[in-house]
Amino acid sequence: MQQVICTVDVVLLTLQDDALKVALLNRSHEPFQGVAALPGGYIHPQSDGDAQDAALRVLREKTGITPPYLEQLATFSGPARDPRGWSVSIVYYALVPANVVAENVHPGVKLTSVDKPLKLPFDHLEIIRAAVARLRSKSQYSSLPCYLAGETFTLPQLQRVYESLMGEAINKVSFRRKITEMDMLEAVEGVFSSGVAHRPAQLYRLKPEIHEQLALLARGM
Amino acid sequence: MQQVICTVDVVLLTLQDDALKVALLNRSHEPFQGVAALPGGYIHPQSDGDAQDAALRVLREKTGITPPYLEQLATFSGPARDPRGWSVSIVYYALVPANVVAENVHPGVKLTSVDKPLKLPFDHLEIIRAAVARLRSKSQYSSLPCYLAGETFTLPQLQRVYESLMGEAINKVSFRRKITEMDMLEAVEGVFSSGVAHRPAQLYRLKPEIHEQLALLARGM
Repeated sequence: MQQVICTVDVVLLTLQDDALKVALLNRSHEPFQGVAALPGGYIHPQSDGDAQDAALRVLREKTGITPPYLEQLATFSGPARDPRGWSVSIVYYALVPANVVAENVHPGVKLTSVDKPLKLPFDHLEIIRAAVARLRSKSQYSSLPCYLAGETFTLPQLQRVYESLMGEAINKVSFRRKITEMDMLEAVEGVFSSGVAHRPAQLYRLKPEIHEQLALLARGM
Repeated sequence: MQQVICTVDVVLLTLQDDALKVALLNRSHEPFQGVAALPGGYIHPQSDGDAQDAALRVLREKTGITPPYLEQLATFSGPARDPRGWSVSIVYYALVPANVVAENVHPGVKLTSVDKPLKLPFDHLEIIRAAVARLRSKSQYSSLPCYLAGETFTLPQLQRVYESLMGEAINKVSFRRKITEMDMLEAVEGVFSSGVAHRPAQLYRLKPEIHEQLALLARGM
């Protein structure tokens, strides 16, 4: 019986200069050798604990990055998406703050705006569109955008992350009420944002329990 | 290299006597021959167009049912979930009205309440829990429950479906406002519900365009 090719692909997303960017790298092998594509690879049944394990391994090996947030997006499949044969790709998306990307990323990785026209092999364009749609949809009613904000952030910085993802300005009072409602932040004791001319701004981080389980809003932003 | 086993499994859900039930059938082969489990099977790369095609084929062959609604739930994977080896199961959930199940289902299929204690092989219990959680969560803010209500239904019948899924009574006025907001129903011209002693009730069905794309509520039920 013909075999099914089993791979994982990862959509690594970060916010750079208020623009949502995806990590692409030139493929080292055929098919599409030398062409920019999502980091991906075969599942290694000898060593991977599950598909998420495989996604983390592939991402670490190919980009140098261990993401603070990784979620299964969907599985893409069929006879035509990969010229090698009938294939399944279990796709994950990762959210990584820009500074973590900058400090760890391998030199060959290119960060490309998701809103620019992209030409990509396989069904990688469709996959990126699906990941961005999931992120933007979930951003409206959850703590998810915090994973793009860095380990600590001021409230104005966090608001700017939400606004960048949702593509529109949010009223400051309403934003702070929603953030309070989600009960997801803790002040970082005695630490204030540097580089501010007039007065220091309080820094916050996600509460430890929110790392395990997203905080949700009953009604969206 | 060790191969990855590629399968699909389907969680077929229906509402029977206001209880959410899942379709189980006794396995015809090892492993777990004769044990009740979810309908599932290998992907057939020779004939399946994609994993969803495989799920529809497996469901039709094993239960006799073609579901009005089918959605990818998630992919479950790892070395321990199937005694045959490292396996991937791309899982779909299907919503089918009780009358469609009754008219088409193969004799061996058992409808079992999802809220009763279940003992199942593989990770099928975890899979069913995930499907029920997804259905109940989406029911709060979408037209999804309509697929359990049958092709036509009265508004009180539809309200009862929503209430059964959400496990709580919904205020009638609020329910009708939300249904109007979703703009998802059309009256069936000149047809009224039979079997009602006092006066006929208008029957409704989903608008054709809602079959392609769920209607959503900005704020939940």
